[in-house]
Amino acid sequence: MPNKKRNDKKPSRRDVPDALRVKPDSKFKLRDADATRDFGWDKDKCVVATADNRNKLEQLQFQLYADGRFSMLVVIQAIDGGGKDSTIRRVFTAFNPQGCTVTAFKAPSSEVLQHDFLWRVHKAAPARGSIAVFNRSHYEDVLIVRVNDLVPRAVWERRYDQINEFERILAECDTRIVKLFLHISKEEQRERFQDRLDDRKKNWKFDLGDLEKRTQWDAYNEAFEIMLEKCSTAHAPWYVIPANRKWFRDFAVSQILRYELEQLPLKFPQTRLDVGSIKLV
Amino acid sequence: MPNKKRNDKKPSRRDVPDALRVKPDSKFKLRDADATRDFGWDKDKCVVATADNRNKLEQLQFQLYADGRFSMLVVIQAIDGGGKDSTIRRVFTAFNPQGCTVTAFKAPSSEVLQHDFLWRVHKAAPARGSIAVFNRSHYEDVLIVRVNDLVPRAVWERRYDQINEFERILAECDTRIVKLFLHISKEEQRERFQDRLDDRKKNWKFDLGDLEKRTQWDAYNEAFEIMLEKCSTAHAPWYVIPANRKWFRDFAVSQILRYELEQLPLKFPQTRLDVGSIKLV
Repeated sequence: MPNKKRNDKKPSRRDVPDALRVKPDSKFKLRDADATRDFGWDKDKCVVATADNRNKLEQLQFQLYADGRFSMLVVIQAIDGGGKDSTIRRVFTAFNPQGCTVTAFKAPSSEVLQHDFLWRVHKAAPARGSIAVFNRSHYEDVLIVRVNDLVPRAVWERRYDQINEFERILAECDTRIVKLFLHISKEEQRERFQDRLDDRKKNWKFDLGDLEKRTQWDAYNEAFEIMLEKCSTAHAPWYVIPANRKWFRDFAVSQILRYELEQLPLKFPQTRLDVGSIKLV
Repeated sequence: MPNKKRNDKKPSRRDVPDALRVKPDSKFKLRDADATRDFGWDKDKCVVATADNRNKLEQLQFQLYADGRFSMLVVIQAIDGGGKDSTIRRVFTAFNPQGCTVTAFKAPSSEVLQHDFLWRVHKAAPARGSIAVFNRSHYEDVLIVRVNDLVPRAVWERRYDQINEFERILAECDTRIVKLFLHISKEEQRERFQDRLDDRKKNWKFDLGDLEKRTQWDAYNEAFEIMLEKCSTAHAPWYVIPANRKWFRDFAVSQILRYELEQLPLKFPQTRLDVGSIKLV
């Protein structure tokens, strides 16, 4: 019962990021990850902690902007219904949209397909002082592409290394990279899809393609597992977020973002003017 | 005492947008606009109304996104110290950054200068379902460019008509355009600049160029006045926001955004599936 045992341990709030990070160069089994894991944290505590983290994130983003030397890239991946949009709405609204861009990578256009698979994501990389969020990303090129054989195996197999190298370049150029995998169970996905079908205000989100992908649940989970194992690096770690419960998901994501921003040595730059001597009229 | 008289009238909350809109094809004198005008609204009432508007804006943006037919472009202009960044931080954080892009147009790069003056702004125009905010904009090409003679008069003189035509095209293609001019007094600018100089956490924002522009106060205000008069159109109106008091400015901006979004016939699209018949397993 490895999941149960893990759930019994209650890490302190500051330990949550470390507990959810996929360790580089180690085996990772998605089936061992519990989508309802909560470390013994209850809903009320999580809601309070998330609100506190949102306030802190707002301050940290302002310091990131004022400092102007670093940037942050947040990659979000999940199976359909995993809560990517909802996480962005509930956590990333803590950030000022001036200084936080969100790019949703949908099916590639014909122009995009004329380029290498990293071209469109590189264009959306964050400027210094700002945060870029990828709602889906270059990882689709080892997920949907792999599951559906959209390119030959020899092509997608090379991409894991190419992604790691690409992310290393960004990291060396002062971009802090955080990758979030929102992990839900198959039953949770069923409930969320059914809800989209039954709720008049939600069924515009439903797509017949979702049902086809649901039949590929196992193939997707295998592709996720390999992605998490091969591409969680010291310079660009993957975090696996237990995402069945939205209140725990939001808490964990906000705690990780806070932790990652706090690793940067941010400071307010000083003007080089002798400002004390200037009195305006 | 036209300002005093205007201040005595207390328009209802819903009348505020109309009261601040620059009427198309009419004379407009910036010197007649009072930067402290508050219509008799006090700070407490404004703060409560702004919070209420922010909640409503969040909902309206979600409907805009779900509807997917329209977009909104918000142009913000002001003299230095006028509060562009602060307005974005205090009002536009109501929007989900997924679906709201903010582009700050700074001094043009050499690549930008190789193109017509509308090229870089067109690239940043909003996609259907989303909101684009311009922090400065194509109007700089009839402001700083005009004040400093950066191109020949014959070139910048044509731009007022070119801007009106460009905006008409966007409006006809389902983009709702709202233009906000944040109006502060010269004394208010002095206080804000002095504050930037005196506060250690703010003086990274100070730039010696600001002092030079302060000596051009009258020339800038003339350029603003002509811009407001020539380019406030039915399809893309300018609003002049009394911006000395931040609480009134935030209230007015949030009220205008709310009004403008409410003019769109937004609805949740219905899926074409016979959704009632689908039960997932």
